[in-house]
Amino acid sequence: MREVAVIGIGITKFGELWDKSFRQLIAEAGSKAIFDAGIEGKDIDALYIGSMSSGRFIGQEHVGALVADAAGFSHLHIPATRIEGACASGGLAVRQGYLSIASGVNDIVVVGGIEKMNDVAGASATETLATAADQEWEAFFGATFPGLYAMIATRHMHDYGTTKEQLAQVAVKNHANGAKNPYAQYKFEVTVEQVMAAVPVAHPLGLLDCSPVSDGAAAIVLCAMDKAKEFTDKPVKIIASGQASDTLPLHGRRDITTLDATVHAAKMAYKQANVTPKDIDVAEVHDCFTIAEICAIEDLGFVEKGKGGKAVEENITTLDGEIPVNTSGGLKAKGHPVGATGVAQIIEIVEQLRGEADKRQVEDARIGLAHNVGGSGATCVIHILEAI
Amino acid sequence: MREVAVIGIGITKFGELWDKSFRQLIAEAGSKAIFDAGIEGKDIDALYIGSMSSGRFIGQEHVGALVADAAGFSHLHIPATRIEGACASGGLAVRQGYLSIASGVNDIVVVGGIEKMNDVAGASATETLATAADQEWEAFFGATFPGLYAMIATRHMHDYGTTKEQLAQVAVKNHANGAKNPYAQYKFEVTVEQVMAAVPVAHPLGLLDCSPVSDGAAAIVLCAMDKAKEFTDKPVKIIASGQASDTLPLHGRRDITTLDATVHAAKMAYKQANVTPKDIDVAEVHDCFTIAEICAIEDLGFVEKGKGGKAVEENITTLDGEIPVNTSGGLKAKGHPVGATGVAQIIEIVEQLRGEADKRQVEDARIGLAHNVGGSGATCVIHILEAI
Repeated sequence: MREVAVIGIGITKFGELWDKSFRQLIAEAGSKAIFDAGIEGKDIDALYIGSMSSGRFIGQEHVGALVADAAGFSHLHIPATRIEGACASGGLAVRQGYLSIASGVNDIVVVGGIEKMNDVAGASATETLATAADQEWEAFFGATFPGLYAMIATRHMHDYGTTKEQLAQVAVKNHANGAKNPYAQYKFEVTVEQVMAAVPVAHPLGLLDCSPVSDGAAAIVLCAMDKAKEFTDKPVKIIASGQASDTLPLHGRRDITTLDATVHAAKMAYKQANVTPKDIDVAEVHDCFTIAEICAIEDLGFVEKGKGGKAVEENITTLDGEIPVNTSGGLKAKGHPVGATGVAQIIEIVEQLRGEADKRQVEDARIGLAHNVGGSGATCVIHILEAI
Repeated sequence: MREVAVIGIGITKFGELWDKSFRQLIAEAGSKAIFDAGIEGKDIDALYIGSMSSGRFIGQEHVGALVADAAGFSHLHIPATRIEGACASGGLAVRQGYLSIASGVNDIVVVGGIEKMNDVAGASATETLATAADQEWEAFFGATFPGLYAMIATRHMHDYGTTKEQLAQVAVKNHANGAKNPYAQYKFEVTVEQVMAAVPVAHPLGLLDCSPVSDGAAAIVLCAMDKAKEFTDKPVKIIASGQASDTLPLHGRRDITTLDATVHAAKMAYKQANVTPKDIDVAEVHDCFTIAEICAIEDLGFVEKGKGGKAVEENITTLDGEIPVNTSGGLKAKGHPVGATGVAQIIEIVEQLRGEADKRQVEDARIGLAHNVGGSGATCVIHILEAI
């Protein structure tokens, strides 16, 4: 199995981008990544595109081919494939690109992630996002993601004494990080008081506990490790890729506060990378809601089960904490164009490991982890990267 | 790069299956394939699911995880990924499963393809299928697939003198084959006169020139060649996998009667397999419309460009012809549940190469090809298989 490195990254601003189309967004992110890698179109062996619901949002399936075309590569006839796993679509696309190079079939692959969720002709964002839940058992009866994660939060509070203040502190931390990220949707800080007083969405989650509806795209260039030095003197190596599934609806889980898909994908990734949670210097985790970050740091083994709220309260996950989490601002403040998120997480880790994260830089970051979840946890994909 | 074989196959009946749900269909196909391979759930390293537009048809994205769950595997936490490339979704899923084994990461992978197009809550089939075309340049203005392929047919007639009778003969042949296939949607023969007299859909294509709207699922079990003999004494080896893209809308093509994605994917596949078109004993090609089969046999190099109509007239592609094409009945008669089609094509080739195709059996078939197209040709994926 061949080793694989990230040799280029590109991202658009995340936000309500009323003046930018799907095509424009992916072309912008892709061309930045290609420029950063110093490659040309003819060097690219394949494209993988993560997008959750382009069919419903913009009335367009078949977006693998669309992206190859929009990027100006139609004359090169590059294989282009769209990958979908709800909000984990981007991370899954990275994994497929990684496997295709590991197989020896491809040398250089561009992986893009994109979602256009505002200014679209299709159904509302909340309604379309609910297609990531179980249509027959959850969405049909009106369940939406704020509601599902509110149930997880309520149970976590009941089982472990987690407080609404602790949830709020996740938002405070991530907004503080996002304020330092030029590509973030929300570049302002918030206080615990503001989060606590925000309009309720689904008890105990208020508006500032929820990630926003976003447009945006992100792209990375993957390259066989043995060729990476031809293009860059700072390749970032993918030392593990783990993936797992779980029941689609929440009701089938043994414990709704534990995402077993995260537990299993993490186990697979730590084993492949031959590291433990203690070796991780910086992590991007899937904080679609504040409670999701608390579950994630527990399920990833950064803290003991049930101690996630306390860990946030004790500033263990801040920029200068023991294990800095969501230095980009996370889904919460950076924004969450669902198909782009998994790719954008890798970009933040690459910037950290290259030492290019500016005001968000974690000192001496050498090993980073990206954790991307689909829906309420039926899919999880985790990558671990290392500076070379 | 490790070699990969097909060790199990399973398919549902294709048709208007009003009494079967998405979950039931994929569970039926998957369990048949697993039973055929003689494996158990715990042997499966990954699932790949091809589905074009479950989001629009049944209001459900995230169908990778749904399938793992519906199959009863949620406790195994198997990585499950959905692949989309319009009507080529199934073939692309096969390719991802193949690459994941070739990489050395997986040993045994189940690949499923499914679409539920009848008895759905979402938009009409024609409207949803049009999301495989270019939304901004084609679908928005009312273009649908019968219309796009009618333009290809008209141009083919103009450039090469292809006749409506020759188109009709594709339907006659494929219905004759479908009548011998227990899983086919249309198990009746038609005559040239009936096809010619059928109600017009988009000139020159009539109702019997078009593949139907179908429900159905198909699944195969892929295994590393070096382990295949543990499970079966008749593995069918995948000796090539080729994929290519082209402009999403028709207007960007150098010639709308040539699908360059097919030309390039075929070139890649023939090279990897080290064969020429003359070595192919049996082929399943993407006959979403009768004209599509004529273009396909030209673009695949079975006949000279422009001679496809004549070749059909001369019975070169019948069951006992020089190169039997669509022995299953093709999309035309077997049915076309879009996400399932690419997987179902592989199943027909495997049955032929195992010598299990019963009344459709091609004598001494040793090498077979499956050709799966997305939309009007912006995606093509081709597999070549060999009996061991």
